[in-house]
Amino acid sequence: GEPREPAVKTQIPGPETKRQYEALSKISPCQSVSVFVDYDKSIGNYQVDVDGNVLLDAFTQISSLPLGYSHPDLISAATSQQNVRTFINRPSLGVFPGADWTQRLKDSLMPLAPPGHTSLTTMACGACSNENAFKAIYIWYRSKERGSKDPTPEELQSAMVNQKPGCTDYALLGFNGSFHGRTMAPLALTHSKAIHKVDIPTLDFPMAPFPMYKYPLEDNVAENEKEDERCLARVEEIMHEYKNKGRPVVGVVIEPIQAEGGDNHGSNEFFQQLQAITKRNGAALLIDEVQTGGGPTGKFWCYEHFNLPESPDILTFSKKMLTGGFFCKEDFRVAQGYRIFNTWMGDPGKVILLQEVLNVIKRDNLLQNTVVSGDILYKGIRELENRFPNVINSTRGKDRGTFIAFNGKDAATRDAIIANMKQKGVQLGGCGDAAVRLRPALIFQPHHANILLDRLEQVLKEF
Amino acid sequence: GEPREPAVKTQIPGPETKRQYEALSKISPCQSVSVFVDYDKSIGNYQVDVDGNVLLDAFTQISSLPLGYSHPDLISAATSQQNVRTFINRPSLGVFPGADWTQRLKDSLMPLAPPGHTSLTTMACGACSNENAFKAIYIWYRSKERGSKDPTPEELQSAMVNQKPGCTDYALLGFNGSFHGRTMAPLALTHSKAIHKVDIPTLDFPMAPFPMYKYPLEDNVAENEKEDERCLARVEEIMHEYKNKGRPVVGVVIEPIQAEGGDNHGSNEFFQQLQAITKRNGAALLIDEVQTGGGPTGKFWCYEHFNLPESPDILTFSKKMLTGGFFCKEDFRVAQGYRIFNTWMGDPGKVILLQEVLNVIKRDNLLQNTVVSGDILYKGIRELENRFPNVINSTRGKDRGTFIAFNGKDAATRDAIIANMKQKGVQLGGCGDAAVRLRPALIFQPHHANILLDRLEQVLKEF
Ligand code: FES
Repeated sequence: GEPREPAVKTQIPGPETKRQYEALSKISPCQSVSVFVDYDKSIGNYQVDVDGNVLLDAFTQISSLPLGYSHPDLISAATSQQNVRTFINRPSLGVFPGADWTQRLKDSLMPLAPPGHTSLTTMACGACSNENAFKAIYIWYRSKERGSKDPTPEELQSAMVNQKPGCTDYALLGFNGSFHGRTMAPLALTHSKAIHKVDIPTLDFPMAPFPMYKYPLEDNVAENEKEDERCLARVEEIMHEYKNKGRPVVGVVIEPIQAEGGDNHGSNEFFQQLQAITKRNGAALLIDEVQTGGGPTGKFWCYEHFNLPESPDILTFSKKMLTGGFFCKEDFRVAQGYRIFNTWMGDPGKVILLQEVLNVIKRDNLLQNTVVSGDILYKGIRELENRFPNVINSTRGKDRGTFIAFNGKDAATRDAIIANMKQKGVQLGGCGDAAVRLRPALIFQPHHANILLDRLEQVLKEF
Repeated sequence: GEPREPAVKTQIPGPETKRQYEALSKISPCQSVSVFVDYDKSIGNYQVDVDGNVLLDAFTQISSLPLGYSHPDLISAATSQQNVRTFINRPSLGVFPGADWTQRLKDSLMPLAPPGHTSLTTMACGACSNENAFKAIYIWYRSKERGSKDPTPEELQSAMVNQKPGCTDYALLGFNGSFHGRTMAPLALTHSKAIHKVDIPTLDFPMAPFPMYKYPLEDNVAENEKEDERCLARVEEIMHEYKNKGRPVVGVVIEPIQAEGGDNHGSNEFFQQLQAITKRNGAALLIDEVQTGGGPTGKFWCYEHFNLPESPDILTFSKKMLTGGFFCKEDFRVAQGYRIFNTWMGDPGKVILLQEVLNVIKRDNLLQNTVVSGDILYKGIRELENRFPNVINSTRGKDRGTFIAFNGKDAATRDAIIANMKQKGVQLGGCGDAAVRLRPALIFQPHHANILLDRLEQVLKEF
């Protein structure tokens, strides 16, 4: 079972991590490595590193472990004789799906489709989920424009040599602070850290401002409403600019909470009006739930909090979903084979594990658990913010489960908070310029929340 | 054990595949599906579909199954208690690698590094392997250009908003007929099928002609040499054109055999001179071994056949390697963290299976097996070509293991050959306009080759 509490034995990173870092760096670039982990000893919410440090993990592999470490139900699924052949006979799902594939999708992913989404495409990671969802948008828009789903011979010929009219001049609109992945198209829409983008060629994809609210929200209502208006006006303006220059914005791509960019939230009204703008302009709305999806906000998808009059057009997912992929409305379903395609089209081995994750979420009521633990965390951090207003501020994520963040008073303070928390046995993540983000697993319970709050209080007191 | 021979019970696709196709198409686009496969029954070189048809598989999931179906050593690896936690605790390898990760890389991938390649980066598929290898090229070139590995503050600021100088104007050069993947940057270098590219925005990445030889090679030496010269001259010309228009070609990206584009081969001299041109122009040479790598040409990497004076600068891999990734020379190793990065950076669960694959290749002498079976196939098909010159032509892949192809006299003939071979129990692949490609697993033995040749003779006789 899980340890009762964190136990830190060395400075982190410890000597064994340092030794292993030396060895790995001889064969592979690894400047981003934090610690080497003993995955055989890590369990539940606790990550154990190679120096024997036992950390309460509220970062969970960049938010990608839905049930923490070595969950017994996943161990059963992974060792079941029934599943072995699926783990080793990885199919080209687009050409040779397995006999059980349709039923697996019906039992796992399809029940999670947003209302009105009739089409599911599996992929392998967040980047290819977005890349291919973008293609679905281009193809949808071009089909509307030419009045047919079938490309013309002239389009086909010119596309082969990267020319118009086959290769379109469409743009997608992203937001300041956004993160959508690091392959070329998502990277062009990503504006969270310069080091991700510098030296790399990009695309003429425009960027609108994302609302930057003043916190606490209840004390800044009028100002934050104006911020919404400012951002929305700019979105509409850009769409006109780009239409005029012959590069229509065919899709707006947005995270429900900008996670890498600093846990920036938009109001329900912001998202509602953004959807209205896309509809008015004939553009698609893609919600990127790669980090928010799978339950951490207390609903399965974060966009469900927004009370949109209808579903977004496309929803992409990965991370906690173990597989990648996207759901879309019928209009966005591609009519020809091999247009949205690659060798593997996902991995049934990951879907087997996802099925087990979904069973456990339901059986153990983990969305409700996330709501309860999140509430404790949010209230506790707000209280600490009140006590230490010169160290932290802008606690956010009320009613968003454990998807909570706060700012250090500056980047150095933020970095120190994360380092000191680690030294006290709690692993957190950083994001944006000065934010600390909480990204625990769905099994993070109230008593884990209390340990985190206790250690955070200790750390803040020391400033 | 394996069946002794193919057994076809229904028209393919059979009624059960058709039923399952109906069901799947209700929830997921699946126009490219060929048959639904019973992976529990498929074994060795034989794929069994849901209608009970037993096919000798010389296509093997688009060339991605190194050891065929349900190999006993992979079953052991997948069920070993020792490995279970690696299958379910998928790490963010760039931040939290496991205690055994360095050793795993040393035991598996590093011994396969081309001479002079000191840096390995793991990825998850062919597309992200190429996308990230491209980034390594841009960063290498920009570092040379500015005389420092560190971006300037101005570059960092402008990159955040997709502007110069931070976002560079670099181009990569691809070839007519090439295939490098379907995310945006590889797709811009891909010129194999129009339907892959149409309606999608692209990049101004130039395309050079790839040699299109007359076969048999021994009867067309002078003409094929001229073809090399023509293509190489055009490469150099394009590099000058693009330099002049301020978009320097910083890398040349090429497959050792253009697999999707029709199994187009270049001579050793072509590749040697291409490397010389890249060096003369200060550009990188990236060899994309996603389909050729892992042994099917009888050497572990296909470029080893070319007798290059030195290794290519970067080599990308995936498919038969189960994981994706790239090797590169020290100069191409990125000096800062988070530049070549994503949530998972590959998957240790796939590397465990790869280790087992590599053990089996060595123990069972599978490269040698591939040479021997390939020789039988090549000679046999050449003989059939001589007997049926009005049906097939241009057999190619001599001394390239089982990586063999031939052309039907036109696209319709090619399609009919593939369909008729299937009906006689042998699964082949198509590529390019009129090519039939063989992509069996490394366990494809002489007796499998003889079955294939026997069925091919039957099919060709019927034309
Ligand atoms: S791009 Fe998603 S797995 Fe390679």
